[in-house]
Amino acid sequence: MVPRIVEVRKNILRRNDIAAAELRGRFRSAGVFVTSIVSSPGAGKTTFLERTLALVSARHRTAVLVGDLATECDAERLRRSGVPVRQISTGTVCHLDAEMVERAIEGWCLQKLAHLFIENVGNLVCPASYDLGEHLRVVLLSVTEGEDKPLKYPTIFNTADLAVVTKVDLAAAVGFDRAMLLRNIAAVRPDLQVLEVSAKTGEGLLGWVEWLERQQAGLTPDTAVARLET
Amino acid sequence: MVPRIVEVRKNILRRNDIAAAELRGRFRSAGVFVTSIVSSPGAGKTTFLERTLALVSARHRTAVLVGDLATECDAERLRRSGVPVRQISTGTVCHLDAEMVERAIEGWCLQKLAHLFIENVGNLVCPASYDLGEHLRVVLLSVTEGEDKPLKYPTIFNTADLAVVTKVDLAAAVGFDRAMLLRNIAAVRPDLQVLEVSAKTGEGLLGWVEWLERQQAGLTPDTAVARLET
Repeated sequence: MVPRIVEVRKNILRRNDIAAAELRGRFRSAGVFVTSIVSSPGAGKTTFLERTLALVSARHRTAVLVGDLATECDAERLRRSGVPVRQISTGTVCHLDAEMVERAIEGWCLQKLAHLFIENVGNLVCPASYDLGEHLRVVLLSVTEGEDKPLKYPTIFNTADLAVVTKVDLAAAVGFDRAMLLRNIAAVRPDLQVLEVSAKTGEGLLGWVEWLERQQAGLTPDTAVARLET
Repeated sequence: MVPRIVEVRKNILRRNDIAAAELRGRFRSAGVFVTSIVSSPGAGKTTFLERTLALVSARHRTAVLVGDLATECDAERLRRSGVPVRQISTGTVCHLDAEMVERAIEGWCLQKLAHLFIENVGNLVCPASYDLGEHLRVVLLSVTEGEDKPLKYPTIFNTADLAVVTKVDLAAAVGFDRAMLLRNIAAVRPDLQVLEVSAKTGEGLLGWVEWLERQQAGLTPDTAVARLET
């Protein structure tokens, strides 16, 4: 039985990789920059995204997909920022996959978008294995979760392009050991860039958005080349 | 392909249910009371368990299983309490299952134990589906995670026997809305009992251990009957 389960899991991931590659091609040719956000439940993904949208959507056409097992709560919160938001309800499924993203963007004119954000289901494990065709994957980790999390959930840190430490306004209250967290991230992933933010005080948010826009700009030449070639 | 995946998932869960039922029988006949602890990463499972062991293991023979994707950190922390601890390393698997528990307790004399605690992988989604043969499942939720979590992760609350709100010492710092959390828990699971603790200040810990011992005592007549029958 076990080999058959492994085989089915491999098939699922292979099928996802194909769908993700197709999505990535669509995103590239439409010129939309796609950022996914992963974290534990309660690390602050939705609040972080609310603050990000306030800064990004003033200058760029932006849209959001948000995944949850149940409820439309997060989509409702994010819609207040005035950007198009679609909720993906996964039922009992613990992660988003590329086909869910594909179905969710149906009917959207990607060419009119500069940024698409995808907020994954709150889970530090399973989303690591599912490519969504995104350009960047950002893993959030709050100061309240403990400095050992990179060691205990290495896969998600290994597949991320950036780690964002959230709720730094609570650092003193929880006795957060910044040096230890940075050491633990470096132990798992020596080259991973780390930013620190507080959605409550606003600390670090401008730096994060500037970083994001530099990544987007860095991709422009490639996109231009790709367009010339087609 | 999708029906085949669903079928395989059903088979996995069915196989787990059989293994869990066997385990439950072994636990019952040995007279060991088994409590599993589930939560998001960073809700404070290990610290809560450290404090619990300090109170419980003084009076009862106790052992612990602890699940993580990687590292032996939690097992090392828990061993300082002087009780037998075994780490289950799941690799990329996002939950414990009954067969992992069965393998992990091999060689332990269950008859000599009064309590066995099982700390699951940090994940509010997947552990909900896997029965471990435990008597009680306790879901932890820290005040820093946000009051909406029961609505967004209903399955785990529906399979739990108790919800424990952790880190209540941080309630003021994070603007925790206690009434809203209790409303949200009740919306998902009207009869679920809720306790509130701080492992830092000790608040609520004695109440939790007394609650646990009442549950264990409540099972004693059943166990006695079962023993008479065999």
